Amino acid sequence: MPEIERKFLVTALPDGLGEGDAIDQGYLAIAPDGVETRIRRRAGAATLTVKSGPAMIRVEEEIPLEAARFDALWPLTEGRRLEKVRHLIPLEHGLTAELDVYGGVLAGLLTAEIEFPSEAAARDFSPPPWLGEEVTGDATYANQNLATLTAAPGRRPG
Amino acid sequence: MPEIERKFLVTALPDGLGEGDAIDQGYLAIAPDGVETRIRRRAGAATLTVKSGPAMIRVEEEIPLEAARFDALWPLTEGRRLEKVRHLIPLEHGLTAELDVYGGVLAGLLTAEIEFPSEAAARDFSPPPWLGEEVTGDATYANQNLATLTAAPGRRPG
Repeated sequence: MPEIERKFLVTALPDGLGEGDAIDQGYLAIAPDGVETRIRRRAGAATLTVKSGPAMIRVEEEIPLEAARFDALWPLTEGRRLEKVRHLIPLEHGLTAELDVYGGVLAGLLTAEIEFPSEAAARDFSPPPWLGEEVTGDATYANQNLATLTAAPGRRPG
Repeated sequence: MPEIERKFLVTALPDGLGEGDAIDQGYLAIAPDGVETRIRRRAGAATLTVKSGPAMIRVEEEIPLEAARFDALWPLTEGRRLEKVRHLIPLEHGLTAELDVYGGVLAGLLTAEIEFPSEAAARDFSPPPWLGEEVTGDATYANQNLATLTAAPGRRPG
């Protein structure tokens, strides 16, 4: 079943944020048809994920990675990396926002993604005031593309 | 330690070849700097391999893959695949040739690769008569490139 998600820029950090999880994410390679292979370390656990391109039937396989393998592969992602801190924020109706605070060259970029159980729920969603412009489907904010930028995208929150 | 290898086209199949191992190999993605991620099934066992590009300190990580994951990922390699049958052929001085008989659109292409324990051994190697033109370091015959061809390279054995 395809995931139903909406993505927003974030105008201001909501109150009461905890420390969040630091995520180091790097792309090993991205094919012209959008197939991507990336490695990620979050809260000490490493994974290698393969995702299909947008035009294909969605495939996503997440493979656990030993720490030593992650360390061996990380240098191969040079120039294709993201640093971010992820906060999980409970919303009404049992929804959760994944708020990503980007670091490094993307410092200043804040995005939030919300996954919905149905298209109706996605349509009826009323964004809380800290969510700004919607960027659902905007390739600029796809992590695969953000990873190769040298600065945060020009369009700023608000 | 870098591998010391020489690669040759094959003019004729040596006598007494067994059945060999059928190999299905597909590339998930190849980065502009040569980092590649590929999956391979050989004799029923599947792996995902990440290799660094030629200009980098060589990194190669081979990760075992469950059959179900291989099957899920295989469609993502469409247009970036190799079919071949690999034969291991004992040579003098304890060396072994990996003879690859390509199939599919590359039918007619035969290559052999030999790994040496030292540069001296590589230099002193006398190729048996069934080995033809040497293509060591020739990017045309890198598997990464062969996988996207629609026919065997023009230069034919012999």
